[in-house]
Amino acid sequence: MTEHSLWRFSRALHRAINERRREDLEALLDDDVDWAIYGPIDMFPFLGARRGKAAVIEVIRQIADNVRVHRFERETIMLGVDSAASMLRYSLTMLDSNKPISLRLAHFAQFRDGRLTNIRVLVDTFDLVEQALGRPIHLPKMASMA
Amino acid sequence: MTEHSLWRFSRALHRAINERRREDLEALLDDDVDWAIYGPIDMFPFLGARRGKAAVIEVIRQIADNVRVHRFERETIMLGVDSAASMLRYSLTMLDSNKPISLRLAHFAQFRDGRLTNIRVLVDTFDLVEQALGRPIHLPKMASMA
Repeated sequence: MTEHSLWRFSRALHRAINERRREDLEALLDDDVDWAIYGPIDMFPFLGARRGKAAVIEVIRQIADNVRVHRFERETIMLGVDSAASMLRYSLTMLDSNKPISLRLAHFAQFRDGRLTNIRVLVDTFDLVEQALGRPIHLPKMASMA
Repeated sequence: MTEHSLWRFSRALHRAINERRREDLEALLDDDVDWAIYGPIDMFPFLGARRGKAAVIEVIRQIADNVRVHRFERETIMLGVDSAASMLRYSLTMLDSNKPISLRLAHFAQFRDGRLTNIRVLVDTFDLVEQALGRPIHLPKMASMA
């Protein structure tokens, strides 16, 4: 059994972020790759949607300029023939502030011929924003709890 | 082929929230179900972790007191034999304020004998908080974009 595309993609992605070696990742992206990390793009301009290999390589460069990945743990994973979904916990550092960030995210990825064609990433963004700010945001209690 | 557990669970969950009919859902929860919706529990006390059927039924009652589901669209889905993951967009109303909320979430669910044993739900929480507040939270730009 050959290795699932997810594992190769994951290794190449982390190498591109932490070591700025993007050539492996480049070979694993479909030319027309559809990429989205949902989140507050005003605060983190490297979140949001990108289309095509060049745009994704550029956004990975921006992520690498801002983030270092220390550790990640895959809490849940589902693998299809050409698809994968997982929930992960990341330990990161924001390079500007040297602030440690602990982040939970979920991704859904589609591959074709071993190359990523589509990825959607959802992040627990409120938790991310509070950690990046370094202080809690005061919230009113919104729910009626009988 | 019998229907996947996810579909029955999804129907029962929405009926429990919108019609407060919880008996179908009760039959589809494992006694020791492990439940978590990650998010700011200070603002929304019905988020967070729950353990066991009674605790989950109670939290569903609290959700039903606060939220009405208008529409949901499954953007991505992966089904295993006893597992399922999907990314969905929900249109909700917060009943207290009558505020419409549009929400993206991802869930990973495990079933045993047709009953839910484990579910993890991740929400784009910053987007949720801003919509619930009804105003944007000012954020500094945190990234260095060369």
